[in-house]
Amino acid sequence: MTYCVGMVLDKGLVLMSDTRTNSGVDNISTFRKLSHWSVPGERIIAVMTAGNLATTQAVISQLEERTKAPGERDNTLLKGATMFQVATEIGRLLRATIENVQRANGEGGKGRFTATMIVAGQIRGMQPRLFMIYPEGNFIEASHDTPFFQIGETKYGRPILLRGYDRDMSFEDAVKLTMVSFDSTLKANLSVGLPLDLLVIAKDAFAPTHAHRVSAGDAYFEAISRGWGNALRSAFHSLPAYRFSDDA
Amino acid sequence: MTYCVGMVLDKGLVLMSDTRTNSGVDNISTFRKLSHWSVPGERIIAVMTAGNLATTQAVISQLEERTKAPGERDNTLLKGATMFQVATEIGRLLRATIENVQRANGEGGKGRFTATMIVAGQIRGMQPRLFMIYPEGNFIEASHDTPFFQIGETKYGRPILLRGYDRDMSFEDAVKLTMVSFDSTLKANLSVGLPLDLLVIAKDAFAPTHAHRVSAGDAYFEAISRGWGNALRSAFHSLPAYRFSDDA
Repeated sequence: MTYCVGMVLDKGLVLMSDTRTNSGVDNISTFRKLSHWSVPGERIIAVMTAGNLATTQAVISQLEERTKAPGERDNTLLKGATMFQVATEIGRLLRATIENVQRANGEGGKGRFTATMIVAGQIRGMQPRLFMIYPEGNFIEASHDTPFFQIGETKYGRPILLRGYDRDMSFEDAVKLTMVSFDSTLKANLSVGLPLDLLVIAKDAFAPTHAHRVSAGDAYFEAISRGWGNALRSAFHSLPAYRFSDDA
Repeated sequence: MTYCVGMVLDKGLVLMSDTRTNSGVDNISTFRKLSHWSVPGERIIAVMTAGNLATTQAVISQLEERTKAPGERDNTLLKGATMFQVATEIGRLLRATIENVQRANGEGGKGRFTATMIVAGQIRGMQPRLFMIYPEGNFIEASHDTPFFQIGETKYGRPILLRGYDRDMSFEDAVKLTMVSFDSTLKANLSVGLPLDLLVIAKDAFAPTHAHRVSAGDAYFEAISRGWGNALRSAFHSLPAYRFSDDA
């Protein structure tokens, strides 16, 4: 499984992904699921992936390949006029990749090759945008009503995001919130694991503002994990006590 | 969907279930998913159900029916010597019910008729026990290592249970904890809904110690829901701030 969160803030974009991949619980590996490309001063595009690893790697490799010889081929990633065009092209690639492997595998083939992606970025002259791309290639965009997307193992870490997210929060608070959400998920589900990749993209920076890999033993993540357990217990004790006498 | 939690404490058992059933989001009803039977001074057995409503109602009705004419038929529920025998019999009934409907429906039939149950109770002279019964009729029992079970939509409310549970907590704290877990789930998933049914069974009481239905507008649940949001935000702010300068 996987857990990725992407959020839009007034100040820009915050993305975090885990790196665990597994084919059964006895076959666990670490793969990067957060990639980004930028044209300094002009655009930055980041992609996070969840789902079949061969599928997501094929899509990311194709995106990467195109940036290597940009003159020779259509490169929507680095040249698309809008984030909408970029999301459309990545969606098309994702769908085609899934269809290819399913076709090769035949009607009777086993296995699920689907994948889901979060695409985030900004192109000069436009706002930062955040999309969630489905295996079918279509996508939805984050809005004021739904300002963050999760993919993969989304449920454990969702309540704290719903409670804690604020559009005008600082990057530091957003990173802290995201780490709490990941900590809740890691505590509950073995299929999501360290290290975590973090990418912060300030509005109008057109370059990574901050990138960090949270590995096992990361002092800040450990402080959050330990502190959150204690803080939750305090929060819990601060709530009014239930009284049996209230009712029958 | 459904959400039910059952936990064993040193002091006894705490059970809570929601009441929402849905067949699609446009067909939502309220049904009781928490039932109990007792022989005062001798035993109390409680059952919570998740899954296909026709299946779970059939099982509960059969259990109920047997208590109506206990002389005429084998009634493990009220006469089984141990909780293990009770759980075995309920598992057998559950499996048989699912098999019946699947057989009647034929090979090509559509639909999933599975269900999962939590069975809790105590028989005089023995400890309170808690079981989770699978659609196949087999089951697992709660232990010191795994002292609570959830069925249905379990993920949203799991992190706080993992963080907050303590075997020697008071019933009042356990009810509060369970309500927080339900509040997190309700906030995130429409398929779990009020009212909630609560049942507390003190050790060696062999009768319900406290039963309560939490309906919309319940003052305590609203205080928990509102208070938890604020308490979480305070907890969040009490954690150390993330600093970009720590690393590249």
